[in-house]
Amino acid sequence: MELLKERIRLEGRVKAGNILKVDSFLNHQMDIALFHEIGKEFRRLFAGETITKILTLEASGIGLAVVAAQHFGNCPVIFAKKTQSKNLDGDLYLARVTSYTRGTVTDIQVSKKYLGPADNLLIIDDFLATGAALLGLVEIARQSGARLVGCGIVIEKGFQQGGALLRDKGIRVESLAVIQAFDGDRVIFA
Amino acid sequence: MELLKERIRLEGRVKAGNILKVDSFLNHQMDIALFHEIGKEFRRLFAGETITKILTLEASGIGLAVVAAQHFGNCPVIFAKKTQSKNLDGDLYLARVTSYTRGTVTDIQVSKKYLGPADNLLIIDDFLATGAALLGLVEIARQSGARLVGCGIVIEKGFQQGGALLRDKGIRVESLAVIQAFDGDRVIFA
Repeated sequence: MELLKERIRLEGRVKAGNILKVDSFLNHQMDIALFHEIGKEFRRLFAGETITKILTLEASGIGLAVVAAQHFGNCPVIFAKKTQSKNLDGDLYLARVTSYTRGTVTDIQVSKKYLGPADNLLIIDDFLATGAALLGLVEIARQSGARLVGCGIVIEKGFQQGGALLRDKGIRVESLAVIQAFDGDRVIFA
Repeated sequence: MELLKERIRLEGRVKAGNILKVDSFLNHQMDIALFHEIGKEFRRLFAGETITKILTLEASGIGLAVVAAQHFGNCPVIFAKKTQSKNLDGDLYLARVTSYTRGTVTDIQVSKKYLGPADNLLIIDDFLATGAALLGLVEIARQSGARLVGCGIVIEKGFQQGGALLRDKGIRVESLAVIQAFDGDRVIFA
């Protein structure tokens, strides 16, 4: 998606540890017009699929998923929670997510009430790198019995193993910008 | 907002400790069509105001703020972060939020790059109860020098002090559903 790559080239900043900062438009300040173009592109990529639910992970996936849902007939969006919440009770789908970069282990959770075998599910998230978070969401989809149509990712770090891990499982992953490498401050797309 | 109250009457569940669970449409599964009606109502209430930025708090404010922004000319949305993040660096606005219900203290943070004296700011959040989170966002607005137009709240617990605390400071708070009391399972609106 050229508009997105252009934006990454212009505003993305590469930090130590292969961190790409895109907080001016994606995951702190959010550019809503750009989010609509992203949603439109997901719709184009998953054309012909009827999506009944979109699943994402708090916090930075939520804005993207909510805007994308408007391109999928306003289907409901569920965000998996990272913390024990008073807002959740009863039966939960649970998956353990190990963040290698942060060195943390988190149980992400979705109420069983909102996802089941009748659903055609699209997962949306902002980044795919090691795949840890996405594998957690995929595990929740598996537990629910929903049909996982695929995953829509905004930025994939193609030099990390997440994309291959997921695609090797037969999961459809569509990434709008795939980064091949960082060359100093410069982002090289695949 | 009658549509919202009706939804709370139908799907809200009252739990011990004055907790209102609205996870079927507001803060776990999100009803995007309802969010648009909410956004429209905020636009109506703040008609005539030019909003340059919307500020919210992760996670459950994000979906609401992003949809509402579409009714305010697609202005950018910033979500304050609750945790130290690799995505943030440099100068930050910081505010301490004490959650009485959870017994936690959190420093919420916004990058100074994205909010300043030139901004007309609208704060949006899902709940107003003790006012702790909202006072944190207001403090960030104060530090930034932005003009705080007001706060748009989806559900206010009118029997808790948050609303009065904020309004006594001269801050405009517009809540779409104000709960006067819980009577067993029943929600009584003001």
